[in-house]
Amino acid sequence: MAVARPRHGHVSTHVAGGGAVSGSARPLRSRLQARPGPGAAGMEVIRSNFKDTLNKVYDAVEEADFLAIDGEFSGISDGPSVSALTNGFDTPEERYQKLKKHSMDFLLFQFGLCTFKYDHMEEKYIMKSFNFYIFPKPFNRSSPDVKFVCQSSSIDFLANQGFDFNKVFRNGIPYLNQEEERQLREQYDEKRSQANGAGSLSYISPNATKCPVTIPEDQKKFIERVVERIEDFLKNEENESLELEPCTGFQRKLIYQTVSWKYPKGIHVETLETEKKERYIIISKVDEEERKRREQQKQEKEQGQLNDAVGFSRVIHAIANSCKLVIGHNMLLDVMHTIHQFYCPLPDDLNEFKEVTSCVFPRLLDTKLMASTQPFKELINNTSLAELEKRLKEVPFNPPKVESAEGFPSYDTASEQLHEAGYDAYITGLCFISMANFLGSFLSPPKNHVSARSKLIEPFFNKLFLMRVTDIPYLNLEGPDLQPKRDHVLHVTFPKEWKTSDLYQLFSAFGNIQVSWIDDTSAFVSLSQPEQVQIAVNTSRYAESYRIQTYAEYVEKKHEEKRTKRKCTEDSWKEMERKRLKTQCTPYISQSRYYCVNRPSGWTHFTATGTAGKRSMSPIQEEAGSDDMEEEEVQDTELDERDSCAESVPGGRKRAKKFKKVKKEQGPTGGITSSSTELFEVPDSW
Amino acid sequence: MAVARPRHGHVSTHVAGGGAVSGSARPLRSRLQARPGPGAAGMEVIRSNFKDTLNKVYDAVEEADFLAIDGEFSGISDGPSVSALTNGFDTPEERYQKLKKHSMDFLLFQFGLCTFKYDHMEEKYIMKSFNFYIFPKPFNRSSPDVKFVCQSSSIDFLANQGFDFNKVFRNGIPYLNQEEERQLREQYDEKRSQANGAGSLSYISPNATKCPVTIPEDQKKFIERVVERIEDFLKNEENESLELEPCTGFQRKLIYQTVSWKYPKGIHVETLETEKKERYIIISKVDEEERKRREQQKQEKEQGQLNDAVGFSRVIHAIANSCKLVIGHNMLLDVMHTIHQFYCPLPDDLNEFKEVTSCVFPRLLDTKLMASTQPFKELINNTSLAELEKRLKEVPFNPPKVESAEGFPSYDTASEQLHEAGYDAYITGLCFISMANFLGSFLSPPKNHVSARSKLIEPFFNKLFLMRVTDIPYLNLEGPDLQPKRDHVLHVTFPKEWKTSDLYQLFSAFGNIQVSWIDDTSAFVSLSQPEQVQIAVNTSRYAESYRIQTYAEYVEKKHEEKRTKRKCTEDSWKEMERKRLKTQCTPYISQSRYYCVNRPSGWTHFTATGTAGKRSMSPIQEEAGSDDMEEEEVQDTELDERDSCAESVPGGRKRAKKFKKVKKEQGPTGGITSSSTELFEVPDSW
Repeated sequence: MAVARPRHGHVSTHVAGGGAVSGSARPLRSRLQARPGPGAAGMEVIRSNFKDTLNKVYDAVEEADFLAIDGEFSGISDGPSVSALTNGFDTPEERYQKLKKHSMDFLLFQFGLCTFKYDHMEEKYIMKSFNFYIFPKPFNRSSPDVKFVCQSSSIDFLANQGFDFNKVFRNGIPYLNQEEERQLREQYDEKRSQANGAGSLSYISPNATKCPVTIPEDQKKFIERVVERIEDFLKNEENESLELEPCTGFQRKLIYQTVSWKYPKGIHVETLETEKKERYIIISKVDEEERKRREQQKQEKEQGQLNDAVGFSRVIHAIANSCKLVIGHNMLLDVMHTIHQFYCPLPDDLNEFKEVTSCVFPRLLDTKLMASTQPFKELINNTSLAELEKRLKEVPFNPPKVESAEGFPSYDTASEQLHEAGYDAYITGLCFISMANFLGSFLSPPKNHVSARSKLIEPFFNKLFLMRVTDIPYLNLEGPDLQPKRDHVLHVTFPKEWKTSDLYQLFSAFGNIQVSWIDDTSAFVSLSQPEQVQIAVNTSRYAESYRIQTYAEYVEKKHEEKRTKRKCTEDSWKEMERKRLKTQCTPYISQSRYYCVNRPSGWTHFTATGTAGKRSMSPIQEEAGSDDMEEEEVQDTELDERDSCAESVPGGRKRAKKFKKVKKEQGPTGGITSSSTELFEVPDSW
Repeated sequence: MAVARPRHGHVSTHVAGGGAVSGSARPLRSRLQARPGPGAAGMEVIRSNFKDTLNKVYDAVEEADFLAIDGEFSGISDGPSVSALTNGFDTPEERYQKLKKHSMDFLLFQFGLCTFKYDHMEEKYIMKSFNFYIFPKPFNRSSPDVKFVCQSSSIDFLANQGFDFNKVFRNGIPYLNQEEERQLREQYDEKRSQANGAGSLSYISPNATKCPVTIPEDQKKFIERVVERIEDFLKNEENESLELEPCTGFQRKLIYQTVSWKYPKGIHVETLETEKKERYIIISKVDEEERKRREQQKQEKEQGQLNDAVGFSRVIHAIANSCKLVIGHNMLLDVMHTIHQFYCPLPDDLNEFKEVTSCVFPRLLDTKLMASTQPFKELINNTSLAELEKRLKEVPFNPPKVESAEGFPSYDTASEQLHEAGYDAYITGLCFISMANFLGSFLSPPKNHVSARSKLIEPFFNKLFLMRVTDIPYLNLEGPDLQPKRDHVLHVTFPKEWKTSDLYQLFSAFGNIQVSWIDDTSAFVSLSQPEQVQIAVNTSRYAESYRIQTYAEYVEKKHEEKRTKRKCTEDSWKEMERKRLKTQCTPYISQSRYYCVNRPSGWTHFTATGTAGKRSMSPIQEEAGSDDMEEEEVQDTELDERDSCAESVPGGRKRAKKFKKVKKEQGPTGGITSSSTELFEVPDSW
């Protein structure tokens, strides 16, 4: 398992293994052993070269067929042990809540972006890899002073990989989320109207009056003296400007107000800073034209400062607005962190998270989920990124043809860039290309190249791998999540002295069992035979030290508690939440070279009771309807590139029509099972 | 104010100034502008050279006349704004609670120690400066995985000073507090007794029996196979050892238990790791002597590992046990962090904190307090460290004669080592020497050199500077704190829209006022004339938007709330706390070259109601008694060096007898005021 995130597999704590449970909250880790392929290239982007690189990034995103991303964090979990954080029987809702609660205080401090563009003539991909160092450097006195948590095991792991912390902390690119950006913009607007003089006083504060300012007794002399000096200055034609002595902010405010009221026209008031950072006011005579010119100049300067402060978030806006397919490996935490840090605080509700995600990343693909799914599942043993990349170079797969674009420096293949976000994003892209192309071999006639817009990969869209959940392979971003029956699972409560061996002993009569720890005093125990569940519950009825209930009973009780707790305030709360979200998550469209309404037209707001929206976009959850594109033999149809971003444009074809439909069968037990006759479906469980 | 701690003054947010209140939680900062003096030397200590340097550190501490320390942190405050964190009318109790709550999650990641030894022949100090990089690198699977907070403003400030974060995170020295050390020791002991074989089974767990182990059904075959292999191995005389296949921890436990029971003697069982980090068991034939030899070897290795894990804490133990005078500049946060990180979690109660501090630092001196006190107060304008150091080279002070010891590398005076902990500790030491020597000029006959054991500096002992408290200069570690009357202070509650100017307006009839913000909706307002307090309260009686009460009323209400809340559980809680503290804070004496019982014999436990202990050690709080050392003209008497550490040794003279007594007068208002006729007292207020 990775240090900086739970991605690279290798966890010796089996979800329900033979008993070896590490007591530590620290994720176990192993070295990512991949070597970069020849021609790999990464461009290092830090504070000093960010502005100059930004157009390169925009171009790369705009021309790309798909993007790969990766993040490095200052920690993974500040809460319970990893085994508790990733319980094998978490529901997607529970997992989301745990990650939100225990992982969002860490800093995403390196962001890798690798863009891939297919060259049809040369039959190879041209890639551009960027490795951004990120740090919330406060840019002025009133900017947010971010506090973030570091987890020593994660820091230690990255340190061992040669991670350059100095580069992050000294040269990291700053950022603002949308709300912070809005606030800063308002601050500038307010300051501007305040400094403008003439008639702008009413904008300072609704309480301010246009009549003489009330000056506190002890400030009266000070202000009188200032007014005298200004009078002299205005009478005297020699001097163009008047510098006042440095004074307190309160005094400056009084001066501004007094001057605005006394001299509505003809003078310009500005606050400057001495070398010692003391602030003072400078007053100058200006005619209207000069005043406007200065104002314009200042406004441009401020817009530049604002852009600098928004910083790295502009890259995320560009990705969001491009509507390009975004690839990641085990990317749930990457997606959560990216939204949390650069877009808006994560919503409390999973369904609202899905909604926000559709704004920022309208089309995602998780290579770990892909590799864990047919037809790859049986060909790939180890889905950790490094191992996957190695495996996908070998038969029956083909190593992808990828070259770095001209002008992009190469990774030094001698010194391995392990766990560098740009490198990991690059490797993730390679994995995707290999797997996508492999799908082409099933076509008739077979195809060597399968594009990022091919229908063949659509079944993998917007499903994020769920680490170590036994029976729910993914978080479904496009509709309600799977609800496996879990009728072979027991919920057991016991004294905190108990260890896994005690549970084995307790259930020794029931054959092979699997234990998934929840916390010190409870665990899920799954039996091999569902019929034995009731027997176990019955035999425990009179036990004193422990308590056994079925999974269904456990869930029912939990829901009941929630209902009782929320009952009174739920409706009003939900309404509020929705409003809050609306404000925070409007797609980023202003000031961008990109325009796109990201939200899929069929998206509806899911209610807490789990009712699906009008239309689910997941192929396996949708009944085959009257669809002219249903087919027996798979053909390679590509999405119109522009179509993906134009769904809500009147007349645009609806994306739903283009999804390959897979028949859904109702299993005999009532659970959802899919027919396995289709080629590239994403199964409900494995 | 420093970035990494609120030390280096320069705060433009005046406690009760003209209104300019920064809304940011981020401390304002300014560059520390001192240049290192010639001959300054600092030895960089990181993980790799720590063990080799430790004896040098021990020697330096042992031979020193006094020590200077300094810490750099990853942040200062994660809570309210600085102005709220350091309210001008905080009580010492409130300040302690705020710092404990909002500052202890940061990491002390650089520790400076500078030792000073006076060379009487050469009439100069020889100093040795160490700059330790600290990082809680997890040392094994079950070691604590520390999470710490970083504050971006602090990190940014240190980054601008050229702080090397890579050195901290890649090469920082680990540490354990006393409880963690105890736990690790226990772990080793338990593992040892478990691995020992013969007869040790009963130590594994109180529940373990000496009869056959209960093997779960699904493990029976596995264990049977293992037993067969061992039988074969024991019969066969050729092989000396048997390697088993890697297996789970639970399986290894079963093997250990089975083998211990079946073969109590003659074989040695050990767990090793493959290159792939898989753990496996190796069994070897040993006679009793060989077994003991191996055991011994292993034990020594483990002791080494334990020492490595305790790491930097050993330096703090050495300082604690040396009982040397420890100097710091504005050192409250340094002291709190040092105790919290290397000794024990900070106690909830201020008086218990004082008790713990007396264990770790039995004798402290804060140069910022010293510089703010007569006779220095009137000679020194700016008590920030850098400015102080500059001032103390000039008339009437003398630049101290200090040279670095042989073999200690010099600071490069060209590249300034600003905000490097070792350098700051060095500068702090210089300040102390200048000020101490200056006191010698008041003697008759005057003396050029005043030692760290001189009676002259005792009035400054164990009083820590309180940042920005208007009327309580210091936290008194040796007894109850000062309680100024504050009869000119009002507590005002108001709508959160109010700004400082609104308060000025409200009190415009009362002349000059000072405002100290508490939070968004309350502040202390001090009037220039106490007589007006009641008038203000009376006139506000029918106000709707705001509320005014006297400081006394405010305190009374606060105490009442506390009493109501705590009433039921207080006694039992206090008892528990005391017990907890006893366990955690026993002076560190084991395994050390130093021996000292640090706790002053006169120390008693202060109760929450503020009753002083039997005997206060603060000179100004003690009535002059029958003391043979009371004197009209100050003479320079030195403490017997050994005496300071031998107070509880039977027959040792009591330290109290040696304190210079200062007459205390009861002021006319009933508050504590001291007569200002004495030379070097620490005043109650200024």
